[in-house]
Amino acid sequence: MERLKTTKDRHKLLRMPEIGAVTKIESELLRGARKYLEENNFVEVTVPHLTRATGACENIDTLFGLDFFGETAYLSQTGQLYLESLIPLLGNVYCIGSSYRAEPSVDGRHLTEFTLIEIELPTDLEGLMNHIEGLVHSMVTTARDGASKEFQILGIDTKHLKDFPKEFHKITYTDAVKLLKDHEVKWGDDLKSNHEKFLTEHFGGPVFISHYPKAIKFFNMKENAHDPKVVNSTDLLMPGVGESVGAAEREHVFESVHRRLAESPMLRQLEKRGGSIKDFGWYLEYMKENGNVQHSGCGIGLNRVTQFVLSSDDIRTTTPYPQNRESLM
Amino acid sequence: MERLKTTKDRHKLLRMPEIGAVTKIESELLRGARKYLEENNFVEVTVPHLTRATGACENIDTLFGLDFFGETAYLSQTGQLYLESLIPLLGNVYCIGSSYRAEPSVDGRHLTEFTLIEIELPTDLEGLMNHIEGLVHSMVTTARDGASKEFQILGIDTKHLKDFPKEFHKITYTDAVKLLKDHEVKWGDDLKSNHEKFLTEHFGGPVFISHYPKAIKFFNMKENAHDPKVVNSTDLLMPGVGESVGAAEREHVFESVHRRLAESPMLRQLEKRGGSIKDFGWYLEYMKENGNVQHSGCGIGLNRVTQFVLSSDDIRTTTPYPQNRESLM
Repeated sequence: MERLKTTKDRHKLLRMPEIGAVTKIESELLRGARKYLEENNFVEVTVPHLTRATGACENIDTLFGLDFFGETAYLSQTGQLYLESLIPLLGNVYCIGSSYRAEPSVDGRHLTEFTLIEIELPTDLEGLMNHIEGLVHSMVTTARDGASKEFQILGIDTKHLKDFPKEFHKITYTDAVKLLKDHEVKWGDDLKSNHEKFLTEHFGGPVFISHYPKAIKFFNMKENAHDPKVVNSTDLLMPGVGESVGAAEREHVFESVHRRLAESPMLRQLEKRGGSIKDFGWYLEYMKENGNVQHSGCGIGLNRVTQFVLSSDDIRTTTPYPQNRESLM
Repeated sequence: MERLKTTKDRHKLLRMPEIGAVTKIESELLRGARKYLEENNFVEVTVPHLTRATGACENIDTLFGLDFFGETAYLSQTGQLYLESLIPLLGNVYCIGSSYRAEPSVDGRHLTEFTLIEIELPTDLEGLMNHIEGLVHSMVTTARDGASKEFQILGIDTKHLKDFPKEFHKITYTDAVKLLKDHEVKWGDDLKSNHEKFLTEHFGGPVFISHYPKAIKFFNMKENAHDPKVVNSTDLLMPGVGESVGAAEREHVFESVHRRLAESPMLRQLEKRGGSIKDFGWYLEYMKENGNVQHSGCGIGLNRVTQFVLSSDDIRTTTPYPQNRESLM
């Protein structure tokens, strides 16, 4: 596996049997995801990847921009808002495709392009968690059963996949911070990778961390009705990997969406780059005109799940063409 | 269908039942494609979409460029060379994803981003045509049978899908030019949409046009052994739509690949933009070091097939978020 961490001159690795094995495992994970999505009546949506700021995740500063006939377009990081807008017509929807981050680090944790599996559907946080459990279970078991030869080629012991659970542990962010009392985490901080490691080891398996502080999450994650300092979100941590899925109920009433966007750190970042709330024009207009039904959704980082099945501490080992600053080919 | 041609302020259409119907039909076409690919042991490959010139199709001038940490990267138009390089390890491979064209036209024939279904495998032109027939048949019949309600919503008569053939007509480019004797086409010209229309009407169904002039095709399409003026290529024309699939045997010996690239019009275009053969460095190095097995492949324009099933003369009606110069959202 060590050579698979190389991104410079990646073409020199393309005849290694290990590259074939990783590619096959990745394809089985995708097949497992689509199998679950089909069985659960999700409709695939072809979303745009050249977008306005409505294609951004929390971190506006990692957007790739380009000249689009005299305007600035961004390479999208999420299809979320484009998916959400079709729920009233279609119910359960999904997309699988590239997410882009202008992330200069060349290391085992960052890629400039990676695959995101996104679902949006008319349900609440609990219904969403059920689907995440089902999806991840289908991915992991499909790869485990469909690529046993490839795990052998890679010399990977698959005992961590043997009794992969159908249900995952669940804890709130507030309780997680209490568990982390020896780790100098204050309520309001984002969890770091050593905290995530502690928590998955503590529980001995995948664990959902729910109800994060509002200030550190995407603007349309739904405010909790009882405690407006937190949102009805949940992150799934995978053992040895950390955050692999980000999920939440969404605000679906125009006034809430507008207020939350207006007060979001994301909009402050956008303004610093010369943007404004007008960059969310189509989405706000759509919401003002129509509103939406109650719904929830998530993004599953495919390469994180691949890291888990490979027991790999390096994201560059998860795909034949890992993308970062030195890999352009 | 008329309103579905609107790309400006597309968000105003996102509650029209017709948009839901088109999205569902598109998703069924994709499902039909993947069903065939799985049944025929194709492995899905995650290819890069930020590339060097090795992500370009014939027309270098329609590449979107962007600043990638001080270098120029392009938004890829094809994953072909990235797929080809994995055939020796994996055999049949495929990818489905976005293809980008910096095409300023706002009309019924051009999009700046669209979905391309690409396969590459160790076979010859005949084996490839069999797979294209199987793939397109699976797409069309899966959509026909899985989305009958949606065709009704759109008011589309599906009699053209009823006895959709399992085998398509076949003719050489040279014979096609003879058939077009009243259309002022000279041998060596590319076929225009009115020529394609004539040919599909003449045959009354999908038709493969094989063995195009080398000068107007992608550099690594294989030269014909008996007539080096033509390549072992084939384009599939669909009734009412025209070219929907571009396919060919590939050059797989380093010396041939190098010579063909060096003499290609594509390289001349690249040089005019300040590029050089060095932009194909990784691919040439890979081929020099390893060569490849005999293989063939194709790209299926999803939206063209969607146009066929919808009987639509406008590509903007084929997907919920059609992308062109005025659609950025």
